[in-house]
Amino acid sequence: MKVYEYKGFPNPARVRLALAEKGLVDDVEFIHVDVPAGASRSPEFLAINPSGAVPVLVLNDGTVISESAAITEYLDHLSGEPTLTGLNPKERGIIHMMQRKVEDGLLEAVAAYFHHATPGLGPEMETYQNAEWGQKRREVAMKTIQWMNAVLEEQDYLAADRLTVADITAYAGFAFADFAEIAIPEECSHVIAWRNRISSRATTSILA
Amino acid sequence: MKVYEYKGFPNPARVRLALAEKGLVDDVEFIHVDVPAGASRSPEFLAINPSGAVPVLVLNDGTVISESAAITEYLDHLSGEPTLTGLNPKERGIIHMMQRKVEDGLLEAVAAYFHHATPGLGPEMETYQNAEWGQKRREVAMKTIQWMNAVLEEQDYLAADRLTVADITAYAGFAFADFAEIAIPEECSHVIAWRNRISSRATTSILA
Repeated sequence: MKVYEYKGFPNPARVRLALAEKGLVDDVEFIHVDVPAGASRSPEFLAINPSGAVPVLVLNDGTVISESAAITEYLDHLSGEPTLTGLNPKERGIIHMMQRKVEDGLLEAVAAYFHHATPGLGPEMETYQNAEWGQKRREVAMKTIQWMNAVLEEQDYLAADRLTVADITAYAGFAFADFAEIAIPEECSHVIAWRNRISSRATTSILA
Repeated sequence: MKVYEYKGFPNPARVRLALAEKGLVDDVEFIHVDVPAGASRSPEFLAINPSGAVPVLVLNDGTVISESAAITEYLDHLSGEPTLTGLNPKERGIIHMMQRKVEDGLLEAVAAYFHHATPGLGPEMETYQNAEWGQKRREVAMKTIQWMNAVLEEQDYLAADRLTVADITAYAGFAFADFAEIAIPEECSHVIAWRNRISSRATTSILA
C-alpha cells in the first residue's frame, strides 16, 4: 500500500504513528507530496484525492482511503486486534468520542488558527482567511488543553489504559501547536507529562 | 441506557436512525433536553456532557459517550455484526472516510451556516456569530452535495452496497439543510433519489 503524505505535517504524523504502533511500516511506500509548493493541488494529486488533502492511503487494489481517522481505523483492523480503536463496544465508543473531541477541539482548532489567523502556508496556498474565526478557534484549543489536563489527572492516556488513536491525534495536534507557536500552559502539568510519556515510545522515531 | 437528545435535531436523528437500524430502540430511554430554551447549558446537563451538546448516551454503568459518530460506533457493535460501520478493514476504512466527509462537508457545514449566517437559535443561544464564515461554509455544503451526486451516480449508497453511518449522517445533514432553507439543486437527481430511498425505509418512522 502507498501513503501520500508530507512528512512533518500533523495529519500524516497520525498515520505514521499508527503504522509504527501496528508494526506495519515496512508494508508501506511513502510518497512525498510537496504541499507548500502546491503539489497537493495538481491535477495528478486531485485525481487521487479530490479534496486535495494529505495523508491519503491507496491500497494495492487501487482503493483510496482519505481522512486520517478512517486511515487509522483501517490500519488498526488490518493487523492484529484493534488495540488503537477499541476491543469491545464500550471501549470503541469512548475511544471514538475522545478521538473526535481532540481532533475537533485541538488539532483542527489549531489548524484553523494557523491557516486563518497567521500567514499560514503563505498567500498562494491561503486563498481564504478569516482572522477572527482563527482567533476564536485558538480559544477553543486553549480550552481543550485545559479539559485534557483534567482528564489526564485521572488517567495516563486519554481514552483507555493504553495508547489509542485519541492520544495519537492529540499528539499530532501538539506538534501542530508547536509549529503555530501555541504553547501548553505551564499549569497543565498532566498534559506535559502525558506528552513526554508518548514522546518516549520507540514508535515516535517514525516522525524523526 | 439513556439518550439525552432533542427530537428533530440533526445529530440526535443520527442516533435514532442507528438505534432503529440495529433494533435497539426498546432498550433506550429518551430524555428530552430543551436546547432552544437553554437546558443544554444548565449545570445539571453540563455535569453529564461538559460540551453542552446533544445527543449524549449514558450507559447503565454511568459511562457517558458523546459525539454522534462515537455513539453510533458503540451501538453498531452492541447488537449483531457492525453492519453500519463495516465488516472488514477495507469496508471500515471506506465507511469512516465517507462518514467524515459528509459530517464535515455537509452536516457541520450546514450547521455553521445556520448558527453563523442566520439568526440560528436566537440571540441568547448564538452568543458568537461570524456571518462571513457561515457563508463560506454554505459554499462548502453546496460543493459537497455536487460531489455526493457524482458518487451516487455510481452506487445506491454512499459507502457500501447497503446503508451505513455515512448515509445516516448525510440524511440528518439534509434534514438540517431543509431547516436552514438550503435546497438540494434540482440537477442533483442522484442525491434526491438516494434521499427518497432512505426516506422509504421503515426505520425512518423513528424520526416522526
